[in-house]
Amino acid sequence: MIPIRIVLVRPRNPNNIGAAARAMKNFGFTDLIVVSPQSSIWEEARAAVGAEDILERARVYDTLAEAVSDCALVIGTADLRRGEGLAPSSLREQLIRSNGPAALVFGSEKTGLTNADLNFCHRILTIPTCTDFPSMNLGQAVAVCCYELGRGESTTLPLQPANDYATIGELEGLLGQSVEILKDVGFLSEQNVQSMTEELRRSLLRLRPTSREVTVWRGALRQIAWKLGSGG
Amino acid sequence: MIPIRIVLVRPRNPNNIGAAARAMKNFGFTDLIVVSPQSSIWEEARAAVGAEDILERARVYDTLAEAVSDCALVIGTADLRRGEGLAPSSLREQLIRSNGPAALVFGSEKTGLTNADLNFCHRILTIPTCTDFPSMNLGQAVAVCCYELGRGESTTLPLQPANDYATIGELEGLLGQSVEILKDVGFLSEQNVQSMTEELRRSLLRLRPTSREVTVWRGALRQIAWKLGSGG
Repeated sequence: MIPIRIVLVRPRNPNNIGAAARAMKNFGFTDLIVVSPQSSIWEEARAAVGAEDILERARVYDTLAEAVSDCALVIGTADLRRGEGLAPSSLREQLIRSNGPAALVFGSEKTGLTNADLNFCHRILTIPTCTDFPSMNLGQAVAVCCYELGRGESTTLPLQPANDYATIGELEGLLGQSVEILKDVGFLSEQNVQSMTEELRRSLLRLRPTSREVTVWRGALRQIAWKLGSGG
Repeated sequence: MIPIRIVLVRPRNPNNIGAAARAMKNFGFTDLIVVSPQSSIWEEARAAVGAEDILERARVYDTLAEAVSDCALVIGTADLRRGEGLAPSSLREQLIRSNGPAALVFGSEKTGLTNADLNFCHRILTIPTCTDFPSMNLGQAVAVCCYELGRGESTTLPLQPANDYATIGELEGLLGQSVEILKDVGFLSEQNVQSMTEELRRSLLRLRPTSREVTVWRGALRQIAWKLGSGG
């Protein structure tokens, strides 16, 4: 896990603080710092459910300068109105290159980071939103960044249980049985039996049913054939 | 822009509906459908600020089946407790391969999508969260997905020759016709009709036949039904 702290500067909405903590926890980040929150807001936020451990351990500082004083890399977030910064997808690389504590800093809901705040940031990150609606909700912006930081963490994904695809022989068995019935009911004739059989085979190969599916379908076809043979 | 609708099934918190609409707008998506919201919640959500245009244009349906009946690709979201699904980063490729309306479906905050909901989804998407805190806030999950869908917009992916996949409505038509015949010939009984119908639906969604294939099969089934009715 990449060590990075998330810093919220002057957040105004306790729900957003809770949402940020929750997104951190979703993606495995634990180090939250809040700069200069209104005390009532901070108390309300700490009562939020879902990521109590992160909120309990969170530290509060008066200034951004104090919050990041030990950091070797500080990345501030800003929307497109400040020009295009780093993409979120480059975050991991930036952090890996850094040696020492790193911080990702989010401004308040109303104003974002001020120029004075950005003076403490090595880099500016911009989430690529639409230019006509660039301002993201704080909790959602934190979620997108934590998602980007957390992704690809385990490069070896657990293998999906492989599908037990039917063999060519099983598909041919299903095809032969289908063709017999379709001839019986008059859907296939001398004229179209060859082209339609080929079309059905192409479908089966492309669709790749499992052995289980082929078995179920053959059971159904057997029942149809029996009913047709017995006089409907 | 990739055309995709965002579908929220039984959302319980108006703030989350507003947050979802806002994230859509941040990343340029406009088509929101809400399935079976409590009316008070829906009214409150529509009063939210920030993405009024999306909320005003949003449609409400009683069932997920209706909400996606014209869709050629339906992707449901679930957390890791249901196993690992598609990664959000594969969303764009999935959508580009599909031609026709597509939907990305989110369940309620409390329960996520039910098995009955997932029966209408071709694919399941999982945001790769930590296993010990897998459940994401609804608005944040929508934000992460919209971010992934919106990113790299300018990269021109080579367009695959798109298959003309059958819509959910077409698949339901095929399924209904099949079930009638399989009941008629005694393959389906009171005891197994529901579980087998669900199994057949899952097969169809996974296999993704084309409209052409569905049309051919329905012609064959019609002929079988006629023969059965006429006395074999």
